[in-house]
Amino acid sequence: RAADVGGAHRERPVGLRPAGEVRMGSGDRLALSEGEAIAIPTGGAVPEGADAVVPIELCSTDGERVWVLQPAGPGEHVRPAGEDAEAGDVLVPAGRRLLGPDLGLLASSGTASAPVHPRVRVGVVSTGDELVPVGRPLAPGRIHDANAFTLIAAVEEAGGVAVHPPIVPDDPDRLVEALDRLAEEVDVLISSGGVAVGERDPVKRAFAGRGEVELYEVAMQPGKPQAFGSWRNRPFFGLPGNAVSVFVSFEVFVRPALMRMMGRAPFRPEAVAVLEEDVAGLPRKTRFARVRLRRDGARLLAAPTGSHRSSLLTPLAGAHGLAVIPAGVEAVRAGHPCPVIVFRDPEEG
Amino acid sequence: RAADVGGAHRERPVGLRPAGEVRMGSGDRLALSEGEAIAIPTGGAVPEGADAVVPIELCSTDGERVWVLQPAGPGEHVRPAGEDAEAGDVLVPAGRRLLGPDLGLLASSGTASAPVHPRVRVGVVSTGDELVPVGRPLAPGRIHDANAFTLIAAVEEAGGVAVHPPIVPDDPDRLVEALDRLAEEVDVLISSGGVAVGERDPVKRAFAGRGEVELYEVAMQPGKPQAFGSWRNRPFFGLPGNAVSVFVSFEVFVRPALMRMMGRAPFRPEAVAVLEEDVAGLPRKTRFARVRLRRDGARLLAAPTGSHRSSLLTPLAGAHGLAVIPAGVEAVRAGHPCPVIVFRDPEEG
Repeated sequence: RAADVGGAHRERPVGLRPAGEVRMGSGDRLALSEGEAIAIPTGGAVPEGADAVVPIELCSTDGERVWVLQPAGPGEHVRPAGEDAEAGDVLVPAGRRLLGPDLGLLASSGTASAPVHPRVRVGVVSTGDELVPVGRPLAPGRIHDANAFTLIAAVEEAGGVAVHPPIVPDDPDRLVEALDRLAEEVDVLISSGGVAVGERDPVKRAFAGRGEVELYEVAMQPGKPQAFGSWRNRPFFGLPGNAVSVFVSFEVFVRPALMRMMGRAPFRPEAVAVLEEDVAGLPRKTRFARVRLRRDGARLLAAPTGSHRSSLLTPLAGAHGLAVIPAGVEAVRAGHPCPVIVFRDPEEG
Repeated sequence: RAADVGGAHRERPVGLRPAGEVRMGSGDRLALSEGEAIAIPTGGAVPEGADAVVPIELCSTDGERVWVLQPAGPGEHVRPAGEDAEAGDVLVPAGRRLLGPDLGLLASSGTASAPVHPRVRVGVVSTGDELVPVGRPLAPGRIHDANAFTLIAAVEEAGGVAVHPPIVPDDPDRLVEALDRLAEEVDVLISSGGVAVGERDPVKRAFAGRGEVELYEVAMQPGKPQAFGSWRNRPFFGLPGNAVSVFVSFEVFVRPALMRMMGRAPFRPEAVAVLEEDVAGLPRKTRFARVRLRRDGARLLAAPTGSHRSSLLTPLAGAHGLAVIPAGVEAVRAGHPCPVIVFRDPEEG
């Protein structure tokens, strides 16, 4: 037995009688007697009566005997059952994303399934007689259905599943019908455009007919006009129509809701960056300014990417984050720190 | 025309003749004459001859005339064509992940498709007579097929697609056959276990028969035994068999390769954390120590999660990252900074 092998007081190799071989996965319950050794592969089940494992590099054999060339103590290279986790232990706490180590731990304990939050299904509705599906040629007065793709990619990035039905014409009855049908197969509904307080729009006229949707003016730039409520018991987000407002509103209002619905922490990791240029604030609105980030030693620097106009996508596509300039601040000056909502890893380019 | 409306020198409202309404998406090319106004919805095509748009809140009408109550200058509330991007501009630089703003910009320019790197397909092979599929009961000497699930989740987290064929028995011919078949449908092959230099294992005997795979001893802990090469022209990673070694090897060797194959930046964002306890180094190996992170103001603190034993998954599942302790360092002491590979957002719990 291996316990006979070791102890620092021994100076000569110990000779043990070879007594067979453990086969991986075999159910045979082998046993060792005093003075015997058995060959065992890494991960093999330790035979009854064995009390240590000696690496093969530290043994030699003459056919008659296995010679153990270095001292070995009881329990060496043996992994006791229950060492990693015991019956009753919590393997994975509720509320976390299941990564490789979690699945490995669950699988090693034979846990074949775990209750999880499903990916949230999000219906993205495009309404408007002016919209042309991407890939079809434009006629005068027409534009491509672009906001939907901003939203689809943002939903997928958040871990949701986007559903995008065909474009709905400017007709409140058709919109009600489309929303009713979509609500059957999704958890959340999003539209964009047509929610400004002054506007007469089919989206707003549809709200009057069904659902419980309120219009809001939010003290933010971009993104002032917003609608929110429920449609057939599904949360409904009516985002503004400008290309940049759509994305900023998604980041600020929709993404946190989707994350929460999936049991995840609702917010982007916080970052504080030092501005490379002044960024003007607004008297009564929070400004979300598009900024490009770069590392400078331990500091993160943020440079505005251009115009604040909410119709311009290029300054947004070139940005890594939204610098948050509080309402009533004349400007956050160059060299001063500013909180940033980071939506693109600066290391990705 | 709207240009007649404004100028700071005017004090009285200007009256314009109503001349119809722009319909969204209509191809009709309307035109305005001197002294006329036309109703236009947000986003409508500006008629020929119009030179400004005035918000409806700043107008009143008596049926006969539209009264413009505030000065308006030429171009106001008009978005010229080509303002966001012009023909020939690069909309999205090569090599970046396409997020919402990118897809919105591509869609708004009518770009219906873009060349992208496909998700890499990764075959995860489990070999061993001792392995039992998760969900089936264990017999003596058997363990569940757990490493595969660590790898499957890690592949999916990296953005790849994992393919996991049935468990292959300990028979080199069956393994060669399984790898050959799998190589047909994936871009990369991964196995775990059976690559230690001293071992006699079917995985190693399979390498002798086909493929070009070398065994390595890497100066790291965990993860010393590694195999790498190609199998039917697919990259082949033979990872060590210990549960923690599998994950650490994936992070250090496989994930960067998969990210590069998908055209992405190969590395995790760098973090430097202050250790909360001493972490011992090794004389000739880099140690990857499992640590739990927490924010403390601007600092990130890292506490070791327990044993360094590469068989124990619980300290890994409880960790946010791997603290990198260079070879030859006796210890990185508590209070000192240490680079950390962050694989789980500390804000997620």
